[in-house]
Amino acid sequence: MADGKAPRRPRAETPKGFRDYFGADVVARKAMLDTIAGVYHRYGFDPLETSAVETVEALGKFLPDVDRPNEGVFAWKEEDDWLALRYDLTAPLARVRAQYPDLPSPYRRYAMGPVWRNEKPGPGRFRQFYQCDADTVGSASVAADAEICAMLADVFDTLGLGGDYVIKVNNRKVLNGVMEVAGVLDPEDPDRFAEERGIVLRAIDKMDRLGEAGVRALLGEGRRDESGDFTKGAGLTEAQVDVVMSFVDASRIVEKELREGPPHPDNRVPGGMGFTVDNPLEQSTHVGRLWNWAANDHLMRLVGTNDTGFQGLKELGEMSDLLASQGYGPDRIRIDPSVVRGLGYYTGPVFEAELTFEILDDDGRKRQFGSVAGGGRYDDLVKRFTGQSVPATGISIGVDRLLAALRAKGRSTADTTGPVVVTVMDRDRMADYQSMAADLRRAGIRAEVYLGNPKNFGNQLKYADKRQSPVAVIQGGNEAAAGTVILKDLILGAKIAEDASLEEWKARPAQVEVPRADLVPAVQKMLKGG
Amino acid sequence: MADGKAPRRPRAETPKGFRDYFGADVVARKAMLDTIAGVYHRYGFDPLETSAVETVEALGKFLPDVDRPNEGVFAWKEEDDWLALRYDLTAPLARVRAQYPDLPSPYRRYAMGPVWRNEKPGPGRFRQFYQCDADTVGSASVAADAEICAMLADVFDTLGLGGDYVIKVNNRKVLNGVMEVAGVLDPEDPDRFAEERGIVLRAIDKMDRLGEAGVRALLGEGRRDESGDFTKGAGLTEAQVDVVMSFVDASRIVEKELREGPPHPDNRVPGGMGFTVDNPLEQSTHVGRLWNWAANDHLMRLVGTNDTGFQGLKELGEMSDLLASQGYGPDRIRIDPSVVRGLGYYTGPVFEAELTFEILDDDGRKRQFGSVAGGGRYDDLVKRFTGQSVPATGISIGVDRLLAALRAKGRSTADTTGPVVVTVMDRDRMADYQSMAADLRRAGIRAEVYLGNPKNFGNQLKYADKRQSPVAVIQGGNEAAAGTVILKDLILGAKIAEDASLEEWKARPAQVEVPRADLVPAVQKMLKGG
Repeated sequence: MADGKAPRRPRAETPKGFRDYFGADVVARKAMLDTIAGVYHRYGFDPLETSAVETVEALGKFLPDVDRPNEGVFAWKEEDDWLALRYDLTAPLARVRAQYPDLPSPYRRYAMGPVWRNEKPGPGRFRQFYQCDADTVGSASVAADAEICAMLADVFDTLGLGGDYVIKVNNRKVLNGVMEVAGVLDPEDPDRFAEERGIVLRAIDKMDRLGEAGVRALLGEGRRDESGDFTKGAGLTEAQVDVVMSFVDASRIVEKELREGPPHPDNRVPGGMGFTVDNPLEQSTHVGRLWNWAANDHLMRLVGTNDTGFQGLKELGEMSDLLASQGYGPDRIRIDPSVVRGLGYYTGPVFEAELTFEILDDDGRKRQFGSVAGGGRYDDLVKRFTGQSVPATGISIGVDRLLAALRAKGRSTADTTGPVVVTVMDRDRMADYQSMAADLRRAGIRAEVYLGNPKNFGNQLKYADKRQSPVAVIQGGNEAAAGTVILKDLILGAKIAEDASLEEWKARPAQVEVPRADLVPAVQKMLKGG
Repeated sequence: MADGKAPRRPRAETPKGFRDYFGADVVARKAMLDTIAGVYHRYGFDPLETSAVETVEALGKFLPDVDRPNEGVFAWKEEDDWLALRYDLTAPLARVRAQYPDLPSPYRRYAMGPVWRNEKPGPGRFRQFYQCDADTVGSASVAADAEICAMLADVFDTLGLGGDYVIKVNNRKVLNGVMEVAGVLDPEDPDRFAEERGIVLRAIDKMDRLGEAGVRALLGEGRRDESGDFTKGAGLTEAQVDVVMSFVDASRIVEKELREGPPHPDNRVPGGMGFTVDNPLEQSTHVGRLWNWAANDHLMRLVGTNDTGFQGLKELGEMSDLLASQGYGPDRIRIDPSVVRGLGYYTGPVFEAELTFEILDDDGRKRQFGSVAGGGRYDDLVKRFTGQSVPATGISIGVDRLLAALRAKGRSTADTTGPVVVTVMDRDRMADYQSMAADLRRAGIRAEVYLGNPKNFGNQLKYADKRQSPVAVIQGGNEAAAGTVILKDLILGAKIAEDASLEEWKARPAQVEVPRADLVPAVQKMLKGG
């Protein structure tokens, strides 16, 4: 500076892949999370807040999202340890459960907060984002899984999304049964055929995009796409492929029965009946039943004689009964064998919550809003620390997506009204203006005094506009002498400026002069639009 | 595993210097922060949430706490940049203000969240902790400083700490005036005497510990402590030392006037009068006046003829008048020249909030709870980015300390009651138990079904105890057949077990049997203790 050289200035930039949230966005997210926390609390879940930092050792490599297995963490070296920012809320839960043996068991906990992923930032892809999780650790009962689903349904209902969501439930064991029947999973040697199963899982997940022929090709020798590129297949025989495709078919059957109702009892096969209710007819007409007769039937024939598969179907039936008895119908929670996402990670029941209302995508085409939450049972997470297998099940809500959904449906409850702005006409009477703001606040009205340079009054009104202020309070020398204040209705003013007729303008002036003593009631009246 | 060698298990440990917060602690902090946010909102402040990560370049080296200048940040290298966890909420605010020119100006914002310090962990010294800040950027007016103080007083009042706090206000310019008068600050060459001023600041801050003689020694040649160690002094002459000590004296005068009331008008000196009110008598008797006549008087004589010092005293007088006119008296906000903490960092008014009630320290001695918030005006922070000096003022609340204070005063509002626990006597009737919990929840009662292994009923009651459950619901086969449930009042039960007489025991049994249909009202009655 002394030598006239300006120092290099730091760039004022959010780091790439991170973002800043302002005002109404922060308030709206907080309101949503408060509502969710209220539901979790009512279900007996306790909050847990771990620090953002964990040892890399405790985090492990168990990134939950099978679609992005290579994404990393933000890590740095300490004297002895590598430390890292948590990439989800499940890994810290596992560490906590292992670290504090005196916690109640089962331990129901919820957690809300940011997580960090060290991946390449891209459009809509951030390296810090919120998660909102609820998990039950220490219960092997499917009642715990059913409870998670019921709670999630209550969350959506409480948020005002009733009728706009469906929670789909599947079970990893059904797919494992299919794999065993197809001969690509050997219960005696679980590591065998691991590569083939990976290809099978990925192929099933591409059903929407590739269609039946494409998936069959991937299950078999492989598939050459339009560009000529060849993707190696799982190498299954035709008979094996048929088994897997029959599993994929179950989802089509679900859709059909949803459209057409259950099949005639004569068309039912005994294999599909009765693991939860004795009379098949009763089963199929069970009020509010979430399980689907035909799909159950179909899968029973496919894997009912396989222990793993039967266990999976039995658990789905039990969850269905538990939820139906609490009044949850297939309009809210539905057993759906087509849910494959996350099946590679979870060990039993799997949940996926979809919002069913339509939005326009970036190309202006209508599409369903889609997934906003997912979860399931993962029984091996705590084992890393203790060697003991601890049963656990839970759900993770995508906070940003759910908030976007609430916005799209007009269900976001955040009040975006700015404060009443008390303008400054005479800077020597700042104490008077502060007293006006204080009076308004004492009445619970959000209010502030303009604290910029008061010289240009137009700037003060521009400021009030930027603040989305509903009312401006003005007291110049004349008003002060008369003991009055002028109130300017900025909302009405904006409306009048846009489209009012002369009669409306006259009938309801956007500006009134009232005694200073009446400041509070007059502002209250104006805020009510009266 | 195949070769029989167990893999090394990760340690289930919170990283050193970090901590986990459970249940009631999370709820209590959230309740407190919600209350604070409510006050900030009413004052027109908007929330801002930046990400935890900033570029090291944007963070700069401006660690705010002069007591710990060498503490570092957690940082790691990206491709082009070094990234780091934020160490406070002010540096991100400066970056945001420089990055988003369209924000309203003045920009009032609050922020709440964790910050990280890479320092050696120690007892009560954590590397992640919460801060809660409110700042006004873009207003040079002392009305902005006064507003921060008023808002902070409202925060304490709203939290139920009325009568237990005092917000002390000082002004850096007064001290700078003292430094100029003492000849250790040259307005033409602000870098000159920087080392001496550092020693002077540290010496003043040690008044409590070292007493007058010790501080005088540090201001002069230096001080040898009892162990024989020598601390180099600022090297001031006797006359210079007298000026600085005279400044230190002002705080004693404040204390005296608080005890004894203002001095007789005849003893006042004209130099101390009238920069805010014309009549000195009126000034000294101004209702609710926060400034202290004698201290004002004393400092006026010391630095009133120095431009910087006079400006500082004038600003203190203006803040005092603004706050007094809004009804804040010296019982809540007080001008106090003894506040030195932070003076090295701030450029104008400085605030420090102390809780005045007594607690027992670790050695069982009574002491005041002490500081829970601090702040002031810092006009040069945004300049780093833009080259333009932007005036700013704000406050930072120490969240953990304030929460500890609320606990100590019994003002923490968090409800720590556990859920009603529906026990499981017959695992085949899980759906019935779930329905009971669902009925209770629909009535707004926190409730859960026991989801552990139900075999040992004693374990279920132990679990309910650990959950601090108020009521256990029990329905065995007999009750199910009779259409009833048993409710066990666990709070009353614990009390009776401790100290009930036989009469009390008989008069109000801790266990009742009610029809299943009356479950909800009967639980409600029990929760009310009826």
